[in-house]
Amino acid sequence: MTRTLQAWLRATPPPGILTAIYAVFISLGALVLWLPISHHDAVGFGDALFTAVSAVTVTGLVVVDTGSDFTLFGQIVIAILIQLGGLGLMAFTVLLLSALGVPIGLPSQMILREEVNQTSVSDLGPLVRTIFGVALGAELVGAALLATRFVPQEGWGPGLWDAVFHSVSAFNNAGFSTFSNSLIDYVGDPVVTLVISLMFVVSGLGFVVLSEVWRRRSWRALSLHSKLMLAGSAILIAASFLLFTMLEWTNPDTLGGLDSLGDRVLAGWFQAVTPRTAGFNSVDTAAMRDSTTLLTIGLMIVGGGSASTAGGIKVTTVLVLLMGVIAFFRRSTQLTAFGRSIGTDEVQKVMALTTISTLLIFTSFFALTLSTEIDFKLALFEIASAFGTVGLSLGATGELDGWGRAVIMVLMFAGRVGPLALGFFLATRVTPRVRYPSGQIYLG
Amino acid sequence: MTRTLQAWLRATPPPGILTAIYAVFISLGALVLWLPISHHDAVGFGDALFTAVSAVTVTGLVVVDTGSDFTLFGQIVIAILIQLGGLGLMAFTVLLLSALGVPIGLPSQMILREEVNQTSVSDLGPLVRTIFGVALGAELVGAALLATRFVPQEGWGPGLWDAVFHSVSAFNNAGFSTFSNSLIDYVGDPVVTLVISLMFVVSGLGFVVLSEVWRRRSWRALSLHSKLMLAGSAILIAASFLLFTMLEWTNPDTLGGLDSLGDRVLAGWFQAVTPRTAGFNSVDTAAMRDSTTLLTIGLMIVGGGSASTAGGIKVTTVLVLLMGVIAFFRRSTQLTAFGRSIGTDEVQKVMALTTISTLLIFTSFFALTLSTEIDFKLALFEIASAFGTVGLSLGATGELDGWGRAVIMVLMFAGRVGPLALGFFLATRVTPRVRYPSGQIYLG
Ligand SMILES: [K+]
Ligand SMILES: [K+]
Repeated sequence: MTRTLQAWLRATPPPGILTAIYAVFISLGALVLWLPISHHDAVGFGDALFTAVSAVTVTGLVVVDTGSDFTLFGQIVIAILIQLGGLGLMAFTVLLLSALGVPIGLPSQMILREEVNQTSVSDLGPLVRTIFGVALGAELVGAALLATRFVPQEGWGPGLWDAVFHSVSAFNNAGFSTFSNSLIDYVGDPVVTLVISLMFVVSGLGFVVLSEVWRRRSWRALSLHSKLMLAGSAILIAASFLLFTMLEWTNPDTLGGLDSLGDRVLAGWFQAVTPRTAGFNSVDTAAMRDSTTLLTIGLMIVGGGSASTAGGIKVTTVLVLLMGVIAFFRRSTQLTAFGRSIGTDEVQKVMALTTISTLLIFTSFFALTLSTEIDFKLALFEIASAFGTVGLSLGATGELDGWGRAVIMVLMFAGRVGPLALGFFLATRVTPRVRYPSGQIYLG
Repeated sequence: MTRTLQAWLRATPPPGILTAIYAVFISLGALVLWLPISHHDAVGFGDALFTAVSAVTVTGLVVVDTGSDFTLFGQIVIAILIQLGGLGLMAFTVLLLSALGVPIGLPSQMILREEVNQTSVSDLGPLVRTIFGVALGAELVGAALLATRFVPQEGWGPGLWDAVFHSVSAFNNAGFSTFSNSLIDYVGDPVVTLVISLMFVVSGLGFVVLSEVWRRRSWRALSLHSKLMLAGSAILIAASFLLFTMLEWTNPDTLGGLDSLGDRVLAGWFQAVTPRTAGFNSVDTAAMRDSTTLLTIGLMIVGGGSASTAGGIKVTTVLVLLMGVIAFFRRSTQLTAFGRSIGTDEVQKVMALTTISTLLIFTSFFALTLSTEIDFKLALFEIASAFGTVGLSLGATGELDGWGRAVIMVLMFAGRVGPLALGFFLATRVTPRVRYPSGQIYLG
C-alpha cells in the first residue's frame, strides 16, 4: 500500500498530486458531514458535498445553514476542512508524508513551493514553521478578542465556539459563519467587524509578504513583490471604501438604514474589504445597488495576494496588466515599478493566467445559464464569487439545481486548486530549441 | 484659415487629428439630421446626435426608427455617414486635404496607416484605390442582388433605395436598417439574408486580408495575419453556428417558431455571424435564451478583423491570447502559429490593448448602472454592443436616459476611434534607454 503510494507519488506530476489530495479531503469531508452525527434533518449527500467543497476551497457559499443545520460536531468538521484548505494543504501533506515514511525529496517540496510560490527550496523548513506559528497565533488572538463580545451575549460554551469558528474562518478567508445572516447583527460592532476584517485582510496579503515585513521592517528593504502587494492592496481598499460608502450612503436597505455615522462608515469599510476574498457580509448583499454589485463582482475577480488564503486572479497580476498599459502609453517595451522591471517571461505568464481565468469564468457562466433558471445578475455574481473563492451571494446558491451546483463546485475547485497547479508551470519553463521566424500581424 | 489648419495639422499628433475629424463629422451629421427636412416629428437634437454617432461609428444602435422617423433625405444622410465612418474616414481625409492644398506629408500618411494598419508607406496609393474599388463594386453588386427581392415587393423607388441602403449598411458593418424590425420579415429569404451576411462577413475580414487573397490566390503565399484571420473567422463562425442552432432550435420565440428546417438553419447562420459586428437581426434578439445571449455578448466583444469595418478587440488579438495559453501549457516562451512566431513586443501590445478594452467595458458598464434603471443583462448587452460597434440590442437603447445615452455614445466613439488612435502607438515604439534591474514577483 505504502509502496504503491510512493510509486504513484514519483510517477505523478505535482499538479496531479495536488488535485488528488484536495479531492480526497473533499470526499472525506463530504462523507463525514453526511453522517447523522454531523447534522440535524435535511442535509443530504449533495448538501454535504457542496459544503465540503466550499469549506476546503475556503469559499463560503452555502446551500444549508451552517449554524442551525449542522451540529457542533459538523461545525467542527467544517472548521477543520477550512483550516486544511486555507493554511496550505501542502504543509499538512509534507508532515503526513514524512509520518508515512515517504522520503520528502524534490517532488513534495516542489508541491509546497507552488503552494506558497516560494523560489528557494532551502527556505521551506523555516517557512512552514512561520506559516503555522503566525496562523495559530493570529487565530488564538482573534478568538480571544471575539470572545469578549460573543461570550457575554451567548454564554461560555456557544460564545467561545463562535469566537473560535469565526477566527478560523476569518484568518483562512473562508467566509463561513455560524450566524445565519453572517455578521449583519454585528454591523455596528467595531470589535467584531474590525477584528475579523483585519484578520482576513492581513492573511490575504500572503505569507511571503507578511514574513518579509516581519523580518525586514523597512519599506526599502522589501522585495518588488511585497511592495506591489502592499501598495496595490492599500489603493484597492481606499478606492473601494470611498466608492462603496458613497454609492450605498443613501440606500435605505444597506448603509442608509443604519442609525449613526460611525455605523455607516464601519459597514462601508467592511463591505469594501470583504469581496477580496473574505465573503462575510455585515449588510444585505442582495440589497446593494447595481453599481455597487458590479464593483463587488470586479473586486471578487481581482482577489488577494499570491501564496495567501485569498483567491481571484491576484493583485500582482492586475498590477502587471496595468503596468503593461502604462508602458504602452509611454511607448516603452519595459514594464517597471519601484525602480524594478518585469521580465517578458513574467508578462507572458500574466497574459496566459488572465486568459485562462477569463475563459474559465466565461465558460462557467455559459454552463450555468444552460439549465438553471436564475437571473442573469445573480448568476454572474455567483460565478465571480465561486471563481474568487469569495462566498458572497445575491441569493442564488440555494436556488441552484443539480447542474448549477455542479458548475459552482467545479469552479470553486478550479478557483482554489487551479492557481496552485498552474504554479507548477510558472516554476518550470523551457527555452525553445527551435526558433521560428517572426511573423507580422496587425492588432487593434 | 487654411494656414491655421495646416499649422494645427503639423502640431497635433495623428490620434488627435483622427479624433477631431470623427468629432467634426458627427457634429455636422447631427446638425443635418436635426433639420426638419431630415425627419418627420419627434426627432430632437439628442436623437439626431445619437443617430449620427451610431452611423459614423458604424454601430447601428438606434433611439428612433430609421425607416419611419427619418425622411428619404435623412436616410441618405445616414447612409453617407455610414460610408464615411466605415470606409475609413481617413481615406476621405487624404483626398480632402490634397484638395485643400495641404501637402500630404508623413503625418496624414501615418493617419491612413493607422486606419488600415498597413506597414509600408509606399503601399498607400494602390491600397486606397483598392479599398474604394472593392467597396463600391461590392456595394453595387449587393444592391443589385437585394433589388431583385425588394423591388418586386415595394416598387422601383422604395425597393431600389432599400436595396442601396442595406447594401451600404451591410458592407460597412453598420447594422442600420430602414425596416423597423431589421430583417425579421426576411428570416427565410435566402437571397436577402445570404447577400447581406456575405457582405458583412467578407468586409469584416479587413482590406489587408482581402487584397492579399485577391493578389496571391494561394494559402501558402498568405501572410501570417491573413492566415490567422481566415482560420480564426472560420472556426468562430462554425462554432457559433453550431451553438446558436442547437441552443435556439426549440425556442418557440426564435428558431423554434419557424416552419421549415431550411428557415431555421438560415436564421441560425445569420444570428451566428451578425454579432461580430454587423448588428442586423433576423430573429427577435430579446427572445434568445440566456445562454445564447451570453454567447452573443462574447462574440460582440471579440469582433472582426483589424483594418476592417468591424469593431471589437479583434480576432487576431484573441488568437494571440490563445496562443499565449498554448505556449504556457507547452512551457514554451515562444508563441507560434503556422510556422511563424509572434514577437514579445506584439504580445505586450496585445496585453495592453486587451487590458484597456476590459477597463473600458467595465468602466462604461459601471457608469451605466450609476443612473439608468435598466436590467443588468440588458445593460451588459448594450455595453458589449456599443463597445464592439455591433448594434444589436435587447431593447435597452430606447429606454436610456440622457446619462445612459451619453455613456453609450462615448463607448461607440471609443470603440471605433480608440483602436485607430491606439494604432499610432502600435506603429511607433521606442526601445528603453534606461534598463531597470529585473524584479521577482509571484503570480497565480
Ligand atoms: K471566502
Ligand atoms: K454594426
